[in-house]
Parts: sequence; structure tokens; C-alpha cells
Amino acid sequence: RERVGQLVEATWFTRGILAVIVGNAIVLGVETSVDGGPVDVWLGYVDTAMLWIFVVELALRIFAHGRRFFTDPWSVFDLLVVGIALVPASVHSLSALRALRILRALRVVNAVPSMKRVVNGLVAAVPGMGSVGALLVLVLYVSAVIATKLFRDIAPEHFGHLGTTLFTLFQVMTGEAWPDIAATVMAEMPGAWLFFVLFILVVSFAVLNLFIAVIVSGMES
Amino acid sequence: RERVGQLVEATWFTRGILAVIVGNAIVLGVETSVDGGPVDVWLGYVDTAMLWIFVVELALRIFAHGRRFFTDPWSVFDLLVVGIALVPASVHSLSALRALRILRALRVVNAVPSMKRVVNGLVAAVPGMGSVGALLVLVLYVSAVIATKLFRDIAPEHFGHLGTTLFTLFQVMTGEAWPDIAATVMAEMPGAWLFFVLFILVVSFAVLNLFIAVIVSGMES
Amino acid sequence: RERVGQLVEATWFTRGILAVIVGNAIVLGVETSVDGGPVDVWLGYVDTAMLWIFVVELALRIFAHGRRFFTDPWSVFDLLVVGIALVPASVHSLSALRALRILRALRVVNAVPSMKRVVNGLVAAVPGMGSVGALLVLVLYVSAVIATKLFRDIAPEHFGHLGTTLFTLFQVMTGEAWPDIAATVMAEMPGAWLFFVLFILVVSFAVLNLFIAVIVSGMES
Amino acid sequence: RERVGQLVEATWFTRGILAVIVGNAIVLGVETSVDGGPVDVWLGYVDTAMLWIFVVELALRIFAHGRRFFTDPWSVFDLLVVGIALVPASVHSLSALRALRILRALRVVNAVPSMKRVVNGLVAAVPGMGSVGALLVLVLYVSAVIATKLFRDIAPEHFGHLGTTLFTLFQVMTGEAWPDIAATVMAEMPGAWLFFVLFILVVSFAVLNLFIAVIVSGMES
Ligand code: NA
Ligand code: NA
Repeated sequence: RERVGQLVEATWFTRGILAVIVGNAIVLGVETSVDGGPVDVWLGYVDTAMLWIFVVELALRIFAHGRRFFTDPWSVFDLLVVGIALVPASVHSLSALRALRILRALRVVNAVPSMKRVVNGLVAAVPGMGSVGALLVLVLYVSAVIATKLFRDIAPEHFGHLGTTLFTLFQVMTGEAWPDIAATVMAEMPGAWLFFVLFILVVSFAVLNLFIAVIVSGMES
Repeated sequence: RERVGQLVEATWFTRGILAVIVGNAIVLGVETSVDGGPVDVWLGYVDTAMLWIFVVELALRIFAHGRRFFTDPWSVFDLLVVGIALVPASVHSLSALRALRILRALRVVNAVPSMKRVVNGLVAAVPGMGSVGALLVLVLYVSAVIATKLFRDIAPEHFGHLGTTLFTLFQVMTGEAWPDIAATVMAEMPGAWLFFVLFILVVSFAVLNLFIAVIVSGMES
Repeated sequence: RERVGQLVEATWFTRGILAVIVGNAIVLGVETSVDGGPVDVWLGYVDTAMLWIFVVELALRIFAHGRRFFTDPWSVFDLLVVGIALVPASVHSLSALRALRILRALRVVNAVPSMKRVVNGLVAAVPGMGSVGALLVLVLYVSAVIATKLFRDIAPEHFGHLGTTLFTLFQVMTGEAWPDIAATVMAEMPGAWLFFVLFILVVSFAVLNLFIAVIVSGMES
Repeated sequence: RERVGQLVEATWFTRGILAVIVGNAIVLGVETSVDGGPVDVWLGYVDTAMLWIFVVELALRIFAHGRRFFTDPWSVFDLLVVGIALVPASVHSLSALRALRILRALRVVNAVPSMKRVVNGLVAAVPGMGSVGALLVLVLYVSAVIATKLFRDIAPEHFGHLGTTLFTLFQVMTGEAWPDIAATVMAEMPGAWLFFVLFILVVSFAVLNLFIAVIVSGMES
């Protein structure tokens, strides 16, 4: 077990795995451009071979580290994105999972220390955003219930259901297409401008403070 | 009176009220998806029951705290959003008020200390924005009077009245749809690009400084 | 002369002038909503009366302060925006100047110390933006010459002349409508995506650094 | 050789070259507005004359500085943008290079010390963005492979090939036109909103952190 541990931590081994990850990302990228034909079949074989390399690598790491493997979130992430590919693609409702095989490319982050540090930094900034984020979700929910009630019959394509309204308000938040949506609603309810202006001002202010929370926590570290 | 005070500040009581607030938010959200039918009637009963719980809670808090209740802005906010629901919905022009019942969900902020702290922080940042905000409103007003005078006859749908122009300039400020509006005006008055470019530059600079005011006040705290 | 100096600096005098400035802004705003009719005539009389109050005020300040008046940029600004209104409106090509009478409302800034401080702060931040701003103008000019040369014949409505191209690139800079413009060009010249992507990346980076220059200078003060 | 070195570093010489650079930029700008005719021919002569001034200037600087010339990135940049113009314009596939002659105007940066300092500062901020930038490229690539796989058949004009998808996702990143693209895809695959919302949230968070990296490095210097 100790020798296996030395193996999976050896520079040549981790570099080799990194090369396979990058190679796999390229193979899956190239595969999007070839539809059927012998090249597609061949790329499928290469992808399967690389998948088995990952399976063996993970098996060795689990054998070497034992329980410790499952307490490291990065290792669990590796296990998950490799595991996705083992779900049989024949299951129809899971064919979308085949598209997720490329998530394995994100293992690059775990394999390159400087990128791992950046992502750890980003993840560490999340709790500081917690309270402002919860407030933003609350404002979004309250606004969506009001907008659904008020505009449901005027513009059902944008405000027909709570889910539709939440997606519409997310679009308004990103600053896209809101003049068109507001014009549609205001054609029948001229006072609706008040809702849009208030929503944009409140959400902009909340998002700005979310940014400040990230900036402050980013500067502290 | 003292025992009522102990009651309304007891952990089980405030947690119970928080649960009713969250439950009420969910009920009002679900209600947007059911139109008529027995479920709608039933949700109406649940909403009314929850409303009476809030009325009793507020009555107890007013009895316990007396005048102090009315000097705490959070308590006054609670009273207002609960009071909205007691306005008879049969009054036609007030039917929009029914949509505002969901504002009760914002009472979550008062009930969760960490969210209350965030909102207090946001509110505390507002005075620091005062002078820049007033300047922005002044620039907006002056620009709106000029644009109404100049473009009223060219594009009445965007610049027909001072109010319409203010809404149009708010859209330009959010960076939406301004090329279309500018193209409409410039078709008849080619020099109008100067107005739009100057307005966007001045407003961007003012908004940027509004952001800096918030960031600086956010970092100090 | 000294007594006139005491007069124009007396609290009741400056407050009175501030009231006339605000009143004048309201009058000019209301005027945009009335087209002809006795109210329009009446508002014209009020506006003229207020204008003469400003003329007398400025005459007193020039008499009291002498040369010092012309070395204070705020006083020169007051003189300019009041002077605009004295240009005869009958001159046709100057009718746009009538729309600029509302610029007098900006005199509020000079009359309210806290707003004057904010604007002075904004103006003080400009020199720090100088070099980055010059760089941005240079990038814009170089990009406009390239785009005019390359896309002139493909999309003359966006890139027909250097001036048109500069306006188009300003629209791209504000993040508006660029996918439509890029699609028009790329229909005939598929490689044009490179120009748009490079332009957006370079300009975003330069604008970001312009913002940082303002933020840093804003924090120092 | 020493006397040539004194010559190319003399104030009158560098100022003269700066004047030629600015003059050349104006000539190339004016040239975009004249199509054929004697003025166009004349401007071509002036441009050629200025080009030869640059060639002589660079030859003198190479003679004076020797190898040192090629180790200064600014000098190499000067050589490249002047060299572009010497590629024969008759070669058809290189006619786009003629449009790049205006890049010579960027030599202004090297000739004005304060602008050179700003650009050096910008370039110095790039390494600090490295890890976050690499992460952003990784997220973009992974998202593009997923989107191509999932949406290729639904919206081939936006997601038909990996390159097309990358350009589409860049448009989504700049916040443009994404509601239209999302609506096209969601008409056939309603669950696609999840992809767009997740992509925008992750990319916004990454870009925000890229900004913070630049701000922090900008403040340190
Ligand atoms: Na936008
Ligand atoms: Na936009």
C-alpha cells in the first residue's frame, strides 16, 4: 500500500495523468466536429482507453489513501466526473450525460497547483457572499410572486408561471432585453414602469454589494 | 405586560413566527400556479389563518413594547406589510395590493439576525451615496428636459413627455436598446449622436463614482 | 463695492438665488408638457423674469468681485449658462440653444456646498485618467481606421465613414448590439470575428484600468 | 556609431519622429474618406514618404544600438508595424495587411513616456491574471463542448461547431443577445435554461475575480 502511495504521488505519474486529461479534453473537443465515419469510431476507442486509465488511477489512489480519499473534496470530484462516464449511455434519458464527459477536463484544476489555489480562493469567497446572496434570492422570489400576480394575463410568455417569471427576472438582472419586456407589459398597464425601475435599482444595489463582499474578501487574502 | 414581553422574545416564539413567515411565502408562491379550484380556496384559508397569527403576534408585541414598538423601523415595517392585507380586496383599485401580500416574506430579514445586519449595512451606505445620487438625478432631469425639447417631434414614443423621456434615459443608463433609439432620432437629426455619447459618458462616470462611494463605505465597515 | 460684496454673500441672498434656480428648473420642466396656450405664454413670462434675476445677480457679483469673478471656474460657468439664454432665439440655427436654457439648473451644484465638493472631487479625478484615456482614444482611432478599411463595402451603414465607424465602435464598447453588427459583417467575411473579439477584449481591459485609476484616486481622497 | 546614437536620442529627432507618426495616423484616417481621385494618389505619396522616414529611422536605431535593439520589446514592435507595410500589397491574400498600416500609430505609445508607463503597467498586470484567465478559458472550453453536443441539432447557427459555439458563448459572456439564443434553444429543450443560468453565474463570478486580480495588482503599483 505504501509503494502504491509513492507511485500515485510520483511526479512522472501525476504529469502523465495531467497529459491524459488534456489529451482527453482535446479528443472530446475534436469529436464534436466529426459526425459518424471511421474517425468517430476511432476517437471513441481512444476515449474509452483514456477512461480506463482514469479508472485504474482512481482505484490506485483509493487503495493507497483509503478513507482519506473520500474526505478530500477534490478526490470526490474526480470520482464523480469519471463515474458519470460509466453510466450506460444506452439509457435514453441519460444521453445528456454523454455530453457531461467533458467535465473530466475540469480535473486539470486539481492537477495544476496554481489553478487549484485560485479555485480554492474562489470557493473561500462564497461564505462571505452568503447573507447578501440569500437577500438577493429573497428579493428575486418576492418580485417574481408580485410580477406573476400582476402581469400573468398581460404577458404570459414572460410571466405565466412562477418559474417563467424567475427566468424573466434573471434576464432583466443581466440587463438584457428588459425594455422590450417592459414595453409589452406597459402597453396594457402603464404604471408597470414602477415595478421594473424599482426592481432594477434594488437588484443593482444588492449585486453591487455582493461584488463588494467578494472584493473585500479577495483583498484580505 | 412583562410576561407578554418574555413570550414574544422567547426563542420558540420567534422561531415559530419565522416558520409561519416562510410557510406563508411558500403558500403565496404556490397560489400563483393554481387558478381557481378547491386547492385555491384551501390555500386562501391557510393564508388567512397565517395572517391572523401575524395580527395576534403584532398585537402582543405592541402590548409588550408600547411606544417603543413604533420607534423601531423594523417593527413599523412588520406592521405595514401585515396591514396591507387587511385592506378589503373588494375595493377594485386596490386589487394590486393583493399582489403585495408577498412583501410579508421580507419579514424574514427582521427574523434572521445575519440578514438584518446585511440590510442595516446596505441602508447605512445610502447617506454616503447622497450627494452623488442627487447629482445623478440632476443630470438625468436636465438631460430629460433637453431631450424632450429636441426629440419630442422626431420620436414621440421615446421622448414625447418629460416622464416618457426620463424612462427612456433610464433605459439608456442601463445600457439597453440605446443604439435603436439613437438610430431613430439620428435618421432626422444626424447631430443627435452628440447628445447620446455625452449622456452615456457623463452618466457612466457619475454611476462609477456612486459605486466607489458604496465600495469605500463598504470597506470602512 | 464692499457692501455689494456682503450682499451677494449673505445667506438670505444665496438661498433666494438657489430657490430661483430650482423654481426655474421646474418651470422649464413643466413647459415641456404644455404646447402653446395661455399657460405656455405665462410660463415664458416667469422664465424671462427669472432670467433677469440671474442677470442682476451676476452683474452684482461681477461688480463686487471684479477680476476675481473671472478666475473662478464656477462663476464663469454661471455666466455661460445664463448668457446662452440671451442669444436671440429668432436666429434659426440657434433654436437648439433654447433647449440648453435648462443647463441653468446645473447652477444648483455651485449653490449647494456638498454637491460642489462632489463635482470638484470628480473633476480632480480626471487628470489621473488622462494617460489611460488617451490610450483608449488611440485604440479607438486605430480600430476605426482598420474597420473602415476592411468593412466599408460590406456594411456601409455601420462602417461607411470614419465617423460612422467611431460611433459604431462606441456602441460596441457599451456592449450594445454588437452581435447583430458582427453577424452582418461575418456573413461576407467570416474571419471578422477576430476583429470584434480582440477589440472587445482590449477595450474592456483598458476601460477596466480607467475604472481602477478613478477608484484609486477616489480612495486616496 | 556613437554619433548616430546621440542623433536618434536627441530631443529634436524623437519629437520629429513623433510628429511624423501623428501625421501618418491623420493621413491614413483621411484616406478612408477619399475613394480614388487625385487626393487619394497624393495621400499615397505622402504615406510612402513617411514610411521611408520610418525605415531610415529604424535603420539608424539598429545601427546605433546593435543587438540591444532586438532585446527591447518596444523596438521590435516598431520594426514589426513598419515591416507590415513593406509586404507587397499586390499579393491578394495580404490586402488585409494594408488595413494594418494604421498600427504604426500605436508607435505613439513608445514615443510618449507617460503613455509608455501606462501600457507597461497594463502589461505588468497580465501575469497576475494568468491563473484566473486560464480557469476562464477552461470553463469556456468545457461549456462549449457540452453546448455543442446538446444544442448542435436545435440551433446549428449558434452551436453547429465548436468554433461557432465558442463565439456564441463569448457573446453570452458580454451579456448580449443571450435571451434570444436561449429562447431558440428552449423552444425545443425547455430544460436548457439551466445551462444558460449556470454558465452566466459561473462566468460572471470568474470574470469578477479576474477584475479583482487586476484591481489588486493595480493598487499595489
Ligand atoms: Na447589455
Ligand atoms: Na445589453
